[in-house]
Amino acid sequence: MGIGISAPGALSDVVVLDLSRVLAGPFCTMMLSDLGAQVIKVELPGTGDDSRAFPPFVDGESVYFKNLNRNKKGITLNLKSEKGREIFLRLVEKADILIENYRPGTMEKLNLGWDVLKTVNSALVYGCVSGFGHTGPYAGRAGYDIVGQAMSGLMSVTGWPDGSPTRCGGPMSDVMSGISLCGGVLAALHYSRSTGIGQKVDIALVDTLVASMQIINQIFLATGRVPGRTGNRYESTYPYDTFPTKDHEEIVIGCANDKFWRILCEFMGRPDLIDDPDMSTNQSRVQNHARVRAVVEEWTRTQNSQELADKLLAKGLPACPIYNIAQITQDPQIAGSRQMFIEEEHPRIGKLKVTNTHIKLSETEAGFRTPPPDLGQHNHEIYCDLLRMAPAELKRLEEERIV
Amino acid sequence: MGIGISAPGALSDVVVLDLSRVLAGPFCTMMLSDLGAQVIKVELPGTGDDSRAFPPFVDGESVYFKNLNRNKKGITLNLKSEKGREIFLRLVEKADILIENYRPGTMEKLNLGWDVLKTVNSALVYGCVSGFGHTGPYAGRAGYDIVGQAMSGLMSVTGWPDGSPTRCGGPMSDVMSGISLCGGVLAALHYSRSTGIGQKVDIALVDTLVASMQIINQIFLATGRVPGRTGNRYESTYPYDTFPTKDHEEIVIGCANDKFWRILCEFMGRPDLIDDPDMSTNQSRVQNHARVRAVVEEWTRTQNSQELADKLLAKGLPACPIYNIAQITQDPQIAGSRQMFIEEEHPRIGKLKVTNTHIKLSETEAGFRTPPPDLGQHNHEIYCDLLRMAPAELKRLEEERIV
Repeated sequence: MGIGISAPGALSDVVVLDLSRVLAGPFCTMMLSDLGAQVIKVELPGTGDDSRAFPPFVDGESVYFKNLNRNKKGITLNLKSEKGREIFLRLVEKADILIENYRPGTMEKLNLGWDVLKTVNSALVYGCVSGFGHTGPYAGRAGYDIVGQAMSGLMSVTGWPDGSPTRCGGPMSDVMSGISLCGGVLAALHYSRSTGIGQKVDIALVDTLVASMQIINQIFLATGRVPGRTGNRYESTYPYDTFPTKDHEEIVIGCANDKFWRILCEFMGRPDLIDDPDMSTNQSRVQNHARVRAVVEEWTRTQNSQELADKLLAKGLPACPIYNIAQITQDPQIAGSRQMFIEEEHPRIGKLKVTNTHIKLSETEAGFRTPPPDLGQHNHEIYCDLLRMAPAELKRLEEERIV
Repeated sequence: MGIGISAPGALSDVVVLDLSRVLAGPFCTMMLSDLGAQVIKVELPGTGDDSRAFPPFVDGESVYFKNLNRNKKGITLNLKSEKGREIFLRLVEKADILIENYRPGTMEKLNLGWDVLKTVNSALVYGCVSGFGHTGPYAGRAGYDIVGQAMSGLMSVTGWPDGSPTRCGGPMSDVMSGISLCGGVLAALHYSRSTGIGQKVDIALVDTLVASMQIINQIFLATGRVPGRTGNRYESTYPYDTFPTKDHEEIVIGCANDKFWRILCEFMGRPDLIDDPDMSTNQSRVQNHARVRAVVEEWTRTQNSQELADKLLAKGLPACPIYNIAQITQDPQIAGSRQMFIEEEHPRIGKLKVTNTHIKLSETEAGFRTPPPDLGQHNHEIYCDLLRMAPAELKRLEEERIV
């Protein structure tokens, strides 16, 4: 296609066998493939990854699926057939890493649990991501992003003091778990490469969000106070919040210390507040946050958002607009210098703008290399070239719907 | 202390030099140390990491700092002195990975930019995390968690349709960036170990959250529609939302497909709805979500939360309570089987309950090994044993406040 990265990536000598579907697992293997790993995505003959049918569509093709599965090679294989299982184990012999996000117990039902896999390839790193993890009383429950958000306590601290528990608008459980699995399997790969000993890396959506909130958990664990919802205000510093502006937008102002507060008071034309004992220290401002807010808000309501943010930044004060999804795609930093959106070239639908990787490496660039596979696109390459299967045998397996 | 993990971790042969402070960088190096890496935390003589002064406190000690800095060795060093810089470069020679989260440009001002570091150790992996990254027009701006949440578009899709942009209650920018940096530097370490070529890994808070929302970004990129706030409802499936109950709580019910909906209709005593053309398919339920919600809500209001969740789970329907922070610490799965909270033993404050790692490995267990360092606690060990400095020289450096 000519627009992808052609130089080898940091993980170009790593082979990943990918049984994962939809979001959390594929996000992990997308990252590994962005970093140069050879990812072989294994899908069910006939239907494939459920997300091939997820909106949005372009020319009848799911672009939800497309971006998450860039760079991967795609093969089909029915693991429920004994022959399919045998072929899969031959692939396991060739792999460094195996990733799956089935409901726990599924691999064991297929007679492909870790106990079996490690006898076939003792150096294998087996990474899995599920709702609650592979151990414990809830292991068998279906895990969804909203379940992770609800049971980790995240929803209980998101939203407004007089409102309901609120989910985070992004799929935080799924994505953060996928990123965590990427780190976990690379640590295990490091160990495997030096010792020859593989292992299982078991990531749960709920665990991941619980870990992400450790500084909030620590308030309860250390003091017994249960943190609640504070809207956009943080508990530890003020004014560090969103404020309404003249053009009916809101902006972020983050006065994280007393120096910033003094600069803000001068700039608001309220130098009298600098020595006001109710507002002079961060501690007093946190305590009197409602009064501080009233003062700042009275002033921000007279200003337009973008202009105000620019002026605050010029004074060295942390401030920014609240972007919507359209605005991030136009920003000179995010879309410009950091190239967080790129155009991929696809065989049928042509150019498609997608979100790029956020892992920026100086020597082995990460990102889009090749378009996502059609269902079974690389069957010949993987089965006949890698596993040295005779083309006639592949044809027979296809007819038997094993491949 | 006797309660930490004593077996070597997956990264036990990896040395990490850690200049990072507060949250995003320390979260990354905490993960690396949980995985067994030898992390040497370098702090300013006299004051150290700002977060040593962050609440909550136990016996006058910051437990915010404590948990994020477990397992690390602590030394003091003033990088602004020429002698301090020289000593630092001797440590760089010994390190596999360097992590920092200064404002971009700070390392260059210290004459310790990547151009300098790589001449001292060409195999070094230099990982940095900042608000906007080390390139582009906003690189010099201070990055805070709320700035990442606001400028990535995340706040624009979090909250309620009639409400304001809302921040996610956890520090998602900081933590997800720290986890991403962990993955990035481990990929670069893999490359460095096989080629001898180090590199810089540059992670930005804003980039990370932009990447995390790629399936939401894709709606805009593919269709031009700007995704907005939908409360706890997801756009693609219904009823998949939170619902109020008799005991004034709310629970999550996730009917992700038609089969689940039919089971729910039977269970609600409303089999008549199964064939209602306005609700029979997922597409129709998404379109008529307000009507579907009214029906489900009328029923959930007659039930108590925990009992209802149990009954739905028994029917095989995805459902769960919305936990607060106290509840997660009592749950038999999260706190029990998954051991997401552990007691660490500290020399002065004794036993302290903290959040555990979410990276669960079968062979090289990750987690708490040793308590966090006091300021400069390991100066002798690192300077005299590792760098072979004479104790008299260390004493002189301490007197000169270089160490």
